[in-house]
Amino acid sequence: MTDTTDAGDPREATGALVRDLSETELLAQIFPLLPRGRATLLGPGDDAAVVAAPDGRFVVTTDVLVQDRHFRRRWSSGYDVGVRAAVQNLADVAAMGAVPTALVVSLVVPGDVEVAWVTGLARGLADVCAPVGATVVGGDLSGGDALVVAVAAHGDLEGRDPVTRSGARPGDVVAHAGVRGRSAAGLALLDSGAAAPADGAPGAAGPLAPYVAGYLRPAAPLAAGPAAAVAGATAMLDVSDGLLRDAGRLATASGVALDLEVAALAADGEALVPAVRALGRGAGAALAWVLSGGEDHGLLATFPPGAPLPAEFRPVGTVRVAGGGPGVTVDGAPPEVGPGWDHFRG
Amino acid sequence: MTDTTDAGDPREATGALVRDLSETELLAQIFPLLPRGRATLLGPGDDAAVVAAPDGRFVVTTDVLVQDRHFRRRWSSGYDVGVRAAVQNLADVAAMGAVPTALVVSLVVPGDVEVAWVTGLARGLADVCAPVGATVVGGDLSGGDALVVAVAAHGDLEGRDPVTRSGARPGDVVAHAGVRGRSAAGLALLDSGAAAPADGAPGAAGPLAPYVAGYLRPAAPLAAGPAAAVAGATAMLDVSDGLLRDAGRLATASGVALDLEVAALAADGEALVPAVRALGRGAGAALAWVLSGGEDHGLLATFPPGAPLPAEFRPVGTVRVAGGGPGVTVDGAPPEVGPGWDHFRG
Repeated sequence: MTDTTDAGDPREATGALVRDLSETELLAQIFPLLPRGRATLLGPGDDAAVVAAPDGRFVVTTDVLVQDRHFRRRWSSGYDVGVRAAVQNLADVAAMGAVPTALVVSLVVPGDVEVAWVTGLARGLADVCAPVGATVVGGDLSGGDALVVAVAAHGDLEGRDPVTRSGARPGDVVAHAGVRGRSAAGLALLDSGAAAPADGAPGAAGPLAPYVAGYLRPAAPLAAGPAAAVAGATAMLDVSDGLLRDAGRLATASGVALDLEVAALAADGEALVPAVRALGRGAGAALAWVLSGGEDHGLLATFPPGAPLPAEFRPVGTVRVAGGGPGVTVDGAPPEVGPGWDHFRG
Repeated sequence: MTDTTDAGDPREATGALVRDLSETELLAQIFPLLPRGRATLLGPGDDAAVVAAPDGRFVVTTDVLVQDRHFRRRWSSGYDVGVRAAVQNLADVAAMGAVPTALVVSLVVPGDVEVAWVTGLARGLADVCAPVGATVVGGDLSGGDALVVAVAAHGDLEGRDPVTRSGARPGDVVAHAGVRGRSAAGLALLDSGAAAPADGAPGAAGPLAPYVAGYLRPAAPLAAGPAAAVAGATAMLDVSDGLLRDAGRLATASGVALDLEVAALAADGEALVPAVRALGRGAGAALAWVLSGGEDHGLLATFPPGAPLPAEFRPVGTVRVAGGGPGVTVDGAPPEVGPGWDHFRG
């Protein structure tokens, strides 16, 4: 990747720009890309949508993606950003044990962005939503100097209690569903120039494709959230800021200590070796990605000892009494890598 | 107002900046400002909130405010922006005939913004929500180069059908709740320098205070939405882009013509005379604000002939057969002022 300007994704054909269309015309291009979901009672086009909440409650979360903070236009297509926006929001819904139902999207888009970027965004959102039966039911468009994609996502608990972060108890098994470290590896490859966005384009099959695609379009185990709830998970959260940091949040909320086992994560490190080699780094980089890499959007959950884990989950540690205060250890010792990142301190 | 830089609101004391705090520390300042709502089953702090939907459905809408597009920092305090963000979203909920229950907020905030701006925003959101029993149940924070406030708002239909834009029938009475033209007058006063933001600060009592405050902190008739639904409204929408433009949307969705009566709007024009005089404009400016001024967030609704109107509503016209296609007339003739504004074409 030698292009260092931020002038858009080469995979998107040049065409009409957002400023060439009225808001109504732009919406007319977007709406047909958003199939009706099973919970949609009234879709886009009115002051508000109406969504079914058969359980008499709904879960709701919001997450925002900001150009040059969470994505770069020269790396991420509109489709990629749509996938990420949907995944990071629906992972939060799944982490409560809920089944996703509906999204609304506020999009800030500069006038010189291609219409194809925006329709790509809609396709990315729809492609994540469709397999779980959810859809985009409404949105708002505004001009602005940088792209901002703010999503609110909703889900249904199907009569179950929500699985919060605070229910882990000493003796519980710590388990994880999804990939670990893949997105961080992909980001490092793009950042170094060892891989290009095309290496992670849909359908790309090279040795670095899993990592680059894993950064551009993370795949969250959305069905694993409700499965964990059914299996009796005592606590759960979406791993968005790194395994250590998010495990720390669960530990703090539950007032417990979480001990992660390196042996249980060794296979994750092995899976990252081609990326480590492409970057010429030492083997320690792989474990650092596994423990501290963000944006894989896996699910970290705790289960009562002896409870059968849902198929997507693998045990990665144990909940212990918080003798020295709530926190996370790795093989019984304080972790040696940083705890993740902060949105403002960078 | 001689200050033409965009360096912040003089009403906010200089203090800690957002970049001085971690996200966790900033959230710790915000959460206590958000009282629990009656529908809140699980509030902020987990991956998602849980909100009651006793009706088995919920309405949801999203609207975004962007710095230098929808507000200017030298005019609007964080509190003002919080009020506007809540009002424009809750007005959409009310326009469906629903009672507001919960909001989520995605906030993009540059590091050099004062923490007091952000806590002011939270107070503004809370002050609009509290009287209707709603609250903020979750949010997301991100850095960025410009302030963006994206809200998703939710409401409960209390067992009623949603009031859409498409149910108006020839013979129905067109009625409006809320103020008309006030926000546009306030914007014109600020834009010309004839008034300063301090003229519209909370508690200001000068002759121009209603207009400036009406722009900075519009007051929507939120309770009028459910009242209209109970009274049998056949169609309804929030007037955010001007009476003519939004009436046109209702006419198009319903396949009817809406005829507005100038005589019914004359009192609105009278109420704007002090603003017209302060600007040295002709009397025509007042009617133009009434017909085309946006962001008052009143409710426009249609009612069956003879139906008693809820107290907040005043008749402003009649629904007619769309002989020449759906559209809006004023005293039976095509309107002489522009139809409002477009978000991209400006």
